[in-house]
Amino acid sequence: MEFQFSNKMKNIKSSEIRELLKYIHMPGMISFGGGLPNPESFPGEELRNILDDIMENYVSSALQYGQTNGLPELKEQLAAYLKSDENINVDPENILLTTGSQQALYALPLIFANEGDYVITEAPTYVGMLSSLTASGIRSQSVSMDDNGMITDELEEKIKSMKSKGVMPKFIYTIPTFQNPAGYTMPLDRRKHLLELAQQYNIPVIEDNPYGDLRYSGKKLPTLKSLDTNDMVTYLGTFSKIMAPGLRTGFTVSQPEVLGEFNKLKQSLDLASDSLSQYIAYEYIRKGIIYKQIPKTIELYRRKRDIMLEALDDEMSDATWSRPEGGMFLWVKLNKDMDALKMLKRAINNKIAYVTGSAFYHNNPEMNTMRLNFTYSSDEDLKEGVKRLAKTIKEEKQSL
Amino acid sequence: MEFQFSNKMKNIKSSEIRELLKYIHMPGMISFGGGLPNPESFPGEELRNILDDIMENYVSSALQYGQTNGLPELKEQLAAYLKSDENINVDPENILLTTGSQQALYALPLIFANEGDYVITEAPTYVGMLSSLTASGIRSQSVSMDDNGMITDELEEKIKSMKSKGVMPKFIYTIPTFQNPAGYTMPLDRRKHLLELAQQYNIPVIEDNPYGDLRYSGKKLPTLKSLDTNDMVTYLGTFSKIMAPGLRTGFTVSQPEVLGEFNKLKQSLDLASDSLSQYIAYEYIRKGIIYKQIPKTIELYRRKRDIMLEALDDEMSDATWSRPEGGMFLWVKLNKDMDALKMLKRAINNKIAYVTGSAFYHNNPEMNTMRLNFTYSSDEDLKEGVKRLAKTIKEEKQSL
Repeated sequence: MEFQFSNKMKNIKSSEIRELLKYIHMPGMISFGGGLPNPESFPGEELRNILDDIMENYVSSALQYGQTNGLPELKEQLAAYLKSDENINVDPENILLTTGSQQALYALPLIFANEGDYVITEAPTYVGMLSSLTASGIRSQSVSMDDNGMITDELEEKIKSMKSKGVMPKFIYTIPTFQNPAGYTMPLDRRKHLLELAQQYNIPVIEDNPYGDLRYSGKKLPTLKSLDTNDMVTYLGTFSKIMAPGLRTGFTVSQPEVLGEFNKLKQSLDLASDSLSQYIAYEYIRKGIIYKQIPKTIELYRRKRDIMLEALDDEMSDATWSRPEGGMFLWVKLNKDMDALKMLKRAINNKIAYVTGSAFYHNNPEMNTMRLNFTYSSDEDLKEGVKRLAKTIKEEKQSL
Repeated sequence: MEFQFSNKMKNIKSSEIRELLKYIHMPGMISFGGGLPNPESFPGEELRNILDDIMENYVSSALQYGQTNGLPELKEQLAAYLKSDENINVDPENILLTTGSQQALYALPLIFANEGDYVITEAPTYVGMLSSLTASGIRSQSVSMDDNGMITDELEEKIKSMKSKGVMPKFIYTIPTFQNPAGYTMPLDRRKHLLELAQQYNIPVIEDNPYGDLRYSGKKLPTLKSLDTNDMVTYLGTFSKIMAPGLRTGFTVSQPEVLGEFNKLKQSLDLASDSLSQYIAYEYIRKGIIYKQIPKTIELYRRKRDIMLEALDDEMSDATWSRPEGGMFLWVKLNKDMDALKMLKRAINNKIAYVTGSAFYHNNPEMNTMRLNFTYSSDEDLKEGVKRLAKTIKEEKQSL
């Protein structure tokens, strides 16, 4: 049979990053391309004990369909965790469990925006949001970043300009802390400015905070959600980076009316998230393991970040890069005449993979950029990989 | 902040069935409303051993992000299982793992149909497909059923009539075996007729087969997929009814080009399904536990079906019902002047819950119908519940 697919599918491209996973498995390849946590950070032994307990005490519930909006016991634990960890004061009814936070990135645009509507994102921004916007035919305007994240003065101009044209954005999407892909963090004054603008123009904010717990240096900053006195912020968190990504457990924190809409949509998306994984997350907080595991992960990733930064300082010329205080990524800008996408073939030949920065733009990509992951590779590979990258850039420059 | 939601959200209603879960927990309530497998059917002890093995042997992979289209080892096991179980000859590349088969019910309409397009379903049909069509603004035409499932002569007329108006359906959705909600099964001649029509008019078929393994009487029939020589059928299976629904592991079997589209969309939906649950399913087949567990489940559910049918024969008057050869549900038709939705309040007062049949129609519901689940309740509750239902119907009739 010859199939005909919908018009929407024609617009969706396969994620360059997911495609890159192929190269990771080529012999000898060093990849800074993926966004994978390091398996060394997984609490394997602790989860084994947790699984024993679950199969002993909750086996019927852990294997049964759960409620669409998530395991009530986990929501209670999360509310307490959010209070102690991020000073976010919410009740369990403000929390909805998701199948990874990707599910929230898919659902929230559908909930807030009609096809053809506009939203505002940072440029560059997380591909998971971009692919979701594309899948739903939602357009975006983007705001530039500097070393301090989203330039909120530009955000203000953007909103004013949109308003003057009668086209208001349906939400502002931001990763204010250790941004993916750029590694930037917004300081307090910009956070406040963003919230002021959201209030003044009545625009909901989606704060995506997958990396907030992974700070390796500098001072902790309050989340937008904890600063939000007007219930404007929908906050996304995940266990992927602080427990294990394969368990696909994320959470959305928002007003009950927003979560009510999400609940309706989630019934169609997958009925409910994995029960067993939610029980694991529940016990992970309840037993306090989360509070012991995060410092271990921080120690591991701080070392890896420092190794990559030192290698870059030693090896790279004709490029600048972000110096993230946490998270998993840093952002490299080559000279303006370089094209990281064209250079990728040479990089693969030199057995080093990265993600081209262009993947992180909805429109007008900066072609001279790339994202490097520093959490997954071994210490040796971090050093060797940066050498190969520096060599690749040199060769590419000579070939221009 | 006052939120404005998208136009699409206004059309989506919360599933009546999911809402009914509330009543299940009221003290003394007997519910035939849910679609829950019986926890007695869960292979708790076996899964415990499997989990030990996984945490011993694959801990890093079972906790890491997996491939979007699913765990390769599980796809290989599934291909072998589909061959032996359903005589379906496919390669691993014809299989994509989903977060429950609900994810396929959400994705496939988006892949095959544009907003406003038509598809064909049975009437009544599974709510999970209806909610997905509503969420995506896709319309449906429905084909009536009798005791032998979809009336394919009516399907033929419907297609011809649509064709004459220049509006072809984008797919035909059917649950040919132990249908949800009605419990009907299509005999071989209708299966062949449906496939002939699909071929003649070049319409893809979605065969949803969550219950096929759960046959309690009668002779096994070939799936549409196993009869399909033209690659027209996309087949949906799930571990929810033969292992455990909380592990949210379903699978879609189709042509690589269809699965390629699904893969792109799934990157936005949730990136990848739960890795741990996929490893559990993998070991569940590999160790052959699935072949021992299904006969146990069949024995349990056959007894429960027989108890409910006997109770209905003994207690009910002024109603007819299906006599399913498998699956989880049967379908009750009251007299034409009765309204099962209006009657539900009285039923709840009498501490018996069901799902009104109207929930299973996209348009023109038959209000005198209801779905009863016979797998979840205890043997005693099955008998007592039918008594309460018969009493409720009598009272309601007298009040008319």
